[in-house]
Amino acid sequence: MNVERIRRLLEAVRDGRQTPEDALNALRDLPFEDLGFAKIDHHRQLRRGFPEVILCRGKTTPQVVEIFRKLAEREGMVLATRAEPSVYEAVHAVVPAAEYHEAARAITYGQPSASLPGNVLIVSAGTADIPVAEEAAITAQMAGATVTRLFDVGVAGLHRLLGHRKELEQATVIIVVAGMEGALASVVGGLVDKPLVAVPTSVGYGASFHGLAPLLTMLNSCASGVAVVNIDNGFGAGHFAALLCRTLQSHRERA
Amino acid sequence: MNVERIRRLLEAVRDGRQTPEDALNALRDLPFEDLGFAKIDHHRQLRRGFPEVILCRGKTTPQVVEIFRKLAEREGMVLATRAEPSVYEAVHAVVPAAEYHEAARAITYGQPSASLPGNVLIVSAGTADIPVAEEAAITAQMAGATVTRLFDVGVAGLHRLLGHRKELEQATVIIVVAGMEGALASVVGGLVDKPLVAVPTSVGYGASFHGLAPLLTMLNSCASGVAVVNIDNGFGAGHFAALLCRTLQSHRERA
Amino acid sequence: MNVERIRRLLEAVRDGRQTPEDALNALRDLPFEDLGFAKIDHHRQLRRGFPEVILCRGKTTPQVVEIFRKLAEREGMVLATRAEPSVYEAVHAVVPAAEYHEAARAITYGQPSASLPGNVLIVSAGTADIPVAEEAAITAQMAGATVTRLFDVGVAGLHRLLGHRKELEQATVIIVVAGMEGALASVVGGLVDKPLVAVPTSVGYGASFHGLAPLLTMLNSCASGVAVVNIDNGFGAGHFAALLCRTLQSHRERA
Amino acid sequence: MNVERIRRLLEAVRDGRQTPEDALNALRDLPFEDLGFAKIDHHRQLRRGFPEVILCRGKTTPQVVEIFRKLAEREGMVLATRAEPSVYEAVHAVVPAAEYHEAARAITYGQPSASLPGNVLIVSAGTADIPVAEEAAITAQMAGATVTRLFDVGVAGLHRLLGHRKELEQATVIIVVAGMEGALASVVGGLVDKPLVAVPTSVGYGASFHGLAPLLTMLNSCASGVAVVNIDNGFGAGHFAALLCRTLQSHRERA
Amino acid sequence: MNVERIRRLLEAVRDGRQTPEDALNALRDLPFEDLGFAKIDHHRQLRRGFPEVILCRGKTTPQVVEIFRKLAEREGMVLATRAEPSVYEAVHAVVPAAEYHEAARAITYGQPSASLPGNVLIVSAGTADIPVAEEAAITAQMAGATVTRLFDVGVAGLHRLLGHRKELEQATVIIVVAGMEGALASVVGGLVDKPLVAVPTSVGYGASFHGLAPLLTMLNSCASGVAVVNIDNGFGAGHFAALLCRTLQSHRERA
Amino acid sequence: MNVERIRRLLEAVRDGRQTPEDALNALRDLPFEDLGFAKIDHHRQLRRGFPEVILCRGKTTPQVVEIFRKLAEREGMVLATRAEPSVYEAVHAVVPAAEYHEAARAITYGQPSASLPGNVLIVSAGTADIPVAEEAAITAQMAGATVTRLFDVGVAGLHRLLGHRKELEQATVIIVVAGMEGALASVVGGLVDKPLVAVPTSVGYGASFHGLAPLLTMLNSCASGVAVVNIDNGFGAGHFAALLCRTLQSHRERA
Amino acid sequence: MNVERIRRLLEAVRDGRQTPEDALNALRDLPFEDLGFAKIDHHRQLRRGFPEVILCRGKTTPQVVEIFRKLAEREGMVLATRAEPSVYEAVHAVVPAAEYHEAARAITYGQPSASLPGNVLIVSAGTADIPVAEEAAITAQMAGATVTRLFDVGVAGLHRLLGHRKELEQATVIIVVAGMEGALASVVGGLVDKPLVAVPTSVGYGASFHGLAPLLTMLNSCASGVAVVNIDNGFGAGHFAALLCRTLQSHRERA
Amino acid sequence: MNVERIRRLLEAVRDGRQTPEDALNALRDLPFEDLGFAKIDHHRQLRRGFPEVILCRGKTTPQVVEIFRKLAEREGMVLATRAEPSVYEAVHAVVPAAEYHEAARAITYGQPSASLPGNVLIVSAGTADIPVAEEAAITAQMAGATVTRLFDVGVAGLHRLLGHRKELEQATVIIVVAGMEGALASVVGGLVDKPLVAVPTSVGYGASFHGLAPLLTMLNSCASGVAVVNIDNGFGAGHFAALLCRTLQSHRERA
Repeated sequence: MNVERIRRLLEAVRDGRQTPEDALNALRDLPFEDLGFAKIDHHRQLRRGFPEVILCRGKTTPQVVEIFRKLAEREGMVLATRAEPSVYEAVHAVVPAAEYHEAARAITYGQPSASLPGNVLIVSAGTADIPVAEEAAITAQMAGATVTRLFDVGVAGLHRLLGHRKELEQATVIIVVAGMEGALASVVGGLVDKPLVAVPTSVGYGASFHGLAPLLTMLNSCASGVAVVNIDNGFGAGHFAALLCRTLQSHRERA
Repeated sequence: MNVERIRRLLEAVRDGRQTPEDALNALRDLPFEDLGFAKIDHHRQLRRGFPEVILCRGKTTPQVVEIFRKLAEREGMVLATRAEPSVYEAVHAVVPAAEYHEAARAITYGQPSASLPGNVLIVSAGTADIPVAEEAAITAQMAGATVTRLFDVGVAGLHRLLGHRKELEQATVIIVVAGMEGALASVVGGLVDKPLVAVPTSVGYGASFHGLAPLLTMLNSCASGVAVVNIDNGFGAGHFAALLCRTLQSHRERA
Repeated sequence: MNVERIRRLLEAVRDGRQTPEDALNALRDLPFEDLGFAKIDHHRQLRRGFPEVILCRGKTTPQVVEIFRKLAEREGMVLATRAEPSVYEAVHAVVPAAEYHEAARAITYGQPSASLPGNVLIVSAGTADIPVAEEAAITAQMAGATVTRLFDVGVAGLHRLLGHRKELEQATVIIVVAGMEGALASVVGGLVDKPLVAVPTSVGYGASFHGLAPLLTMLNSCASGVAVVNIDNGFGAGHFAALLCRTLQSHRERA
Repeated sequence: MNVERIRRLLEAVRDGRQTPEDALNALRDLPFEDLGFAKIDHHRQLRRGFPEVILCRGKTTPQVVEIFRKLAEREGMVLATRAEPSVYEAVHAVVPAAEYHEAARAITYGQPSASLPGNVLIVSAGTADIPVAEEAAITAQMAGATVTRLFDVGVAGLHRLLGHRKELEQATVIIVVAGMEGALASVVGGLVDKPLVAVPTSVGYGASFHGLAPLLTMLNSCASGVAVVNIDNGFGAGHFAALLCRTLQSHRERA
Repeated sequence: MNVERIRRLLEAVRDGRQTPEDALNALRDLPFEDLGFAKIDHHRQLRRGFPEVILCRGKTTPQVVEIFRKLAEREGMVLATRAEPSVYEAVHAVVPAAEYHEAARAITYGQPSASLPGNVLIVSAGTADIPVAEEAAITAQMAGATVTRLFDVGVAGLHRLLGHRKELEQATVIIVVAGMEGALASVVGGLVDKPLVAVPTSVGYGASFHGLAPLLTMLNSCASGVAVVNIDNGFGAGHFAALLCRTLQSHRERA
Repeated sequence: MNVERIRRLLEAVRDGRQTPEDALNALRDLPFEDLGFAKIDHHRQLRRGFPEVILCRGKTTPQVVEIFRKLAEREGMVLATRAEPSVYEAVHAVVPAAEYHEAARAITYGQPSASLPGNVLIVSAGTADIPVAEEAAITAQMAGATVTRLFDVGVAGLHRLLGHRKELEQATVIIVVAGMEGALASVVGGLVDKPLVAVPTSVGYGASFHGLAPLLTMLNSCASGVAVVNIDNGFGAGHFAALLCRTLQSHRERA
Repeated sequence: MNVERIRRLLEAVRDGRQTPEDALNALRDLPFEDLGFAKIDHHRQLRRGFPEVILCRGKTTPQVVEIFRKLAEREGMVLATRAEPSVYEAVHAVVPAAEYHEAARAITYGQPSASLPGNVLIVSAGTADIPVAEEAAITAQMAGATVTRLFDVGVAGLHRLLGHRKELEQATVIIVVAGMEGALASVVGGLVDKPLVAVPTSVGYGASFHGLAPLLTMLNSCASGVAVVNIDNGFGAGHFAALLCRTLQSHRERA
Repeated sequence: MNVERIRRLLEAVRDGRQTPEDALNALRDLPFEDLGFAKIDHHRQLRRGFPEVILCRGKTTPQVVEIFRKLAEREGMVLATRAEPSVYEAVHAVVPAAEYHEAARAITYGQPSASLPGNVLIVSAGTADIPVAEEAAITAQMAGATVTRLFDVGVAGLHRLLGHRKELEQATVIIVVAGMEGALASVVGGLVDKPLVAVPTSVGYGASFHGLAPLLTMLNSCASGVAVVNIDNGFGAGHFAALLCRTLQSHRERA
């Protein structure tokens, strides 16, 4: 660790073994983050309890296996998203403790050591949106968050959503996953006044333009309290929600 | 009328004043629509009761005044849309019986002689959507339709909309006018199973891209029974709804 | 059924077994739709005669089979759209009475018990547009509507369309299905003054941008009375047209 | 209030003045929200402390004045965004206690009665982004949040941002406001692992396409924990951040 | 033929076998084009010498074979574009005289009986543009036009193009086929003042957006005399050029 | 003139005043076009009879006046497009013989000395398309072409167009000018088999996206023989048509 | 300067006035850049000779004046781009030595102390592109570069460009400024094999989409050696070219 | 060679075997480039040391093999980009000395004879960007440039980048390769003031729209000195950087 190295440098100055001018030059040659970023890296420790993440898409199976293996050895927890079953099989052969979450297309290794306060409610519209919703769920759970799922409550059958107002009211943060026209985010945002993370999905056809339509819908939501992540980015929403729950924890600890 | 001319031609053939070959050539030289389109023009008579329409946008004030004057003389009813107050003043100076509908930015002349069956419900989201909603309303009314207005019932305050389910149930056809993200069309379409004409408006900013966002939302509506017209096209929606009401009338007459 | 539960609650109040205050609280705890939506669900009964619908696209074959089987058991009629032949085979193995409509890529089960008034005319431009046009046709027919097909009458051979003016005049509502540049909707809309539902298709290449070109064409149609559904959304157009025919029926019944 | 009306209804049943069956029908005729939404409206009370909001853009000055006056009378706090100085003058003439925040283009009336826990850090890139950043700041402050401003720390001068790591570490939630290419959100998101709300602005020219470039940048941010609101939507970001702080409060209260 | 039918009708009137009124009604019931379009169909005869065309893309092989067979029987010439080798094999099995033009991905049957005046010069940029350029060439040749090919003369090696100024000067109409950025059309258009038909191709990657880049380039060409057809539409360009050559012929005949 | 210079150089070689090697080097130092482009500039002479053109848009009035004055002095004919009345007044003060064509927003000076063979038919849809159609007309006329105007024959009133089939049949080349959805090009292209230059206009609103809709419509036209120029580019279409007529002339001269 | 502060700290350690541990903590509290970025800031000195830059667009005149005044006092050179004449007047009143470059819409103060090696050739297409080209020129000149202008050499008159091959060959780096379709960059890039910075401009109309067309053209240039900056970003191109010339200088100095 | 031919022509004039006038005509008939482009082709010699390049994408394997073989015979060096392993195998069978660079998907033949001055630093963000970064590296190396690779230093882990400031400072030109949101170019451009070529990649999903997001980010970079090439165009960036290094060489030689 470099802090040690700097300490030794300062001790050498104290002991007269090194002039201040030489020490100054030595300081300049240190890797950048050693001093300047020391503090920022302190917050890396806050990250503990969050898994390391691998986005499988765009990587070859051997690449995923290799990265997964290293992280599983070094870290307590790993999360791999957008993983096809065949990728899981290859990972599993090398890391037998790895688990597959088929609906989420995710591989996990390890468990969060403690649970975060708060409640993440994940609301999704159609059956085809479930993979994205599950990716959000697994991501938040691996970070220690408590997750409630409220699937298949699209705008076309509004009464189903309205019948679940209790879940809506008890949530700390709500993730809304919807494709086609994405109106669900506005509707949920109009019912409750809570932080809401909207995830447009590429579910749909024609003028949905691979998720552009729900993306625009959500960005223009007339309901306040809605923020949006990338199309199909279940991971991003789950991570954001978990960060929010961790914020609750830090504040509780300080209080 | 050309039918007369053709009849005379045939009588001349009958009377031997003209050979069949000459008559054949004469038929070929008639203006196209005289024969072929005679029947199609019959349906022009069905149009009676509908006003002639002028889209003021893109025309100079003198052009609008001149067209309005001519139509007011020749036809019983005129509707001019997208008319600024100054345009109305110029029209009014020449056609004193012309009326201005400020909220709809429309000028009308004359009244429908009879009212169509059915009930056109116009639902709009925000205050800024009212000009488009009113344009739809005036258009349908000038065609003889009965119009009910349900304004300012956006998705962000869903309970307001839900409190008006009677109006929704009593409508024959519903026009939903909404800007920003346009989710209202899906919500209304999810509540009732009726023909619904959605009008996206250019109300909004940023990623609404001048109405593109609600347009895409409405085209991708997960609620069935939703058809869409051009951005800000209140006239188109009102006319479509009136056509639908006239269809009721024709069928009632046949029945 | 919850109405029963509320009735029992009220009887308990009447009988003094429960105080009004307790009953009030109990009412508040009921699932949302039990009271508030009771009426709206009344109109669900109006839906009778319309099939339940499954959009196969984006669902696995086992998912489709399972949903189809359940709906076939519970409901009288089922319509599955965008179904590949292999999907049909799997459905057919479990629901032998299911029928396949190859041109429409649709599976149906059951028949509408009665026919709706009116006449749905479906006009399409090219051979490649037929699957979408047939999807619209089957959808409308399963809802009880009478459908007339007028295929292969594109703008490039205008005389073929003009030769069918009788069909145009006899239609209650017209569905125009066209890809490439989609001009057919404007042409038909210019010939007759009837409710016209335009369906852009993704047929074409290059600057048709997967249906964007005909979509924009139809939205900007200079002919009035044109409303538009999503690209390739034959189902949406057929459903809209059937809703319109059912409106005729309700009005006839009231008259 | 309708709860009263329902109570009287139940008392009438108890007293035998009304049969359960009649009461059931009466319940069905009540405005929708009276029962079903009673609870959801309970959460309206949670909203207390948040101002009512008026988006001035797209409204005439008289409309803004009238709405502002009514809300100022009825509610303790009002916030009007996108207000030109001339609009403020008109409001001020009628509501003398209204204050103008020039940099934010916002008018406020009243003060939050208590302050929320947590710390909202607002980071912005260029001078031209300040109006949006200030709109976010005023919005969060009016909701009771504590706001720290860190303006003019764009990516082009990275050391300025890196010199403020203390503020980054002490924030509960960070709002990043940036136009042009919007890279600032990714950079801040890469430094700290906190909930980050990114606001793209329309500042820029050419291929920024009125904010589309930073919007896409932020949606695709490789840093996790980033959620995005509409272009120039400072209000949305400020409101989201305040909701998050209120979440802290509710959890603290429960704990 | 209907002209016969009308003649017989007129003769019946002449002979007193039919009243003029009956004849008038009979005329109205004739298929539209029989009278009204008689003349327009005269120009169908002008089309003689042009092949019937099948766009294979989007049709199944059996559909193509069937249409090809019918046209080959009925008409002297057939041209099928976008035909894969396997399609040709199927066609060839049924119509042995059909020929395949591999580079153009086209199948032809028959030969133009006479050649048109003028000279169609086809200029293309890269090897990958050749299929589109060849489609244009075959189309024009099948219509009787004389075609000169000038391939692989892209803007990156301007001297190659400049070395062929003779061909440029001798052309009656020039077709420029280019992908990537499509600058070739402007360069050729800047060298000679002749009718130039530009064909953008989908050759390229990234920001060429499947041909959008050269399409926009060509539409904005600063050289006058440039008109544009759809992306990859070699057929359209070849047909346009042949129409132009036929125009030369008609005028020569009249002169 | 440089040809003179080269001749003198060759004479110097002949006379022994210069060695071939020196002459070779001198040739290499000549401005590029002197030799190499000599022939290409021959075709400049073919341009005679075509006016010099100034696009006023984007130039200041003094700039236009100065360019116009110079061209009027040096050349027999000048055409300035997109000229506001105030620009004309300034030009007229300096070049009194300049004429203004208000509908076309064009200034002309001089007349074509001879007329070209052929007939350019200009068809336009709505009143608002007339400026673009007139720009095309003036451009073609200034180049010596004979122009026929057929305005206000939009698709919404198809019979008006069909009533003018004679003009369609007599045209050598047809220019179709249309905004909104631009379907007119396909309809005219479907009626006659002639070279057709389509000009999309920015007339329309909403989803016409400033002319994008008719541009795409025309590029995807299912009628063959349609080529397209830039949005509102009446000049380009007129120039293309005139080039085509000049082609007739050259061929006639050769024949 | 903080280096001093660190030196003093180290001296205090040497002298025993401070323990190494305290010094370590003090180091951690220093502003980030003091140590870590010391070296990177060394390269700030390399920047000497380059002016400070103000983008006037989006700033109020008083803001520009204030920034200009401060920079003029503190630094030797200032460059303000996109400055309207009125802005210059206000700046000039406060900084009398400021000069205005009308064609470039730029204000400058001071002169580069020395000139850089190399030659920046700026090629532009039309008169309307000159403001952007001049902005590039002034920017490069203020950085000490030698600039050659070659304006009005568009693709439509290729021989003009070809007549200037000497300038092309003598350039170190070429900036090509072009609107409309932007083909000029490909043509110049095809003639010479040098670093070429292409600047698309928003000059044009219709399908140029405010500079999108030339932007795409340039990005897809088939000529290698072409890199692109933002639409109308003359400053960016001029700065890039000057950086390249400074690179020549540093390498010469090292050699 | 034509220079010989011209020399002989001039000698014939000198010897009186040919008149100057005949020689003038003969000069006019020479292929264009023989004289006019002689000098420009001189600079072809400057190209020596640069490999001939084949873009494999869009070509069949036999086409690539044939072109590669010819170039390998005629030229000392060949570079084939976007080559799949199977393409390499086919090339290798014919040109055994060809080498494959798997990460870059490139085939090379031959080596640069000398190395250029300067240092090309290639910085890339994620693992998935490596193919594009390697393509840039191989391209620059084949042209004789010295390349340093700095991979996997994305914005999300800013300290990794900051730890490499030495490499940044020692580079002559920097290539930044990044997908997703592409912020890395702005960050690197903000740290050092050097010519920076940014390459957006199509790595990402959803709203990255196949590279559009990083493309826009880079074009709008607030850091000056950034120029951009097409999406995934590693070759273009490598070639541009090598051209810049060759510029250093030419200037050194002249100095």
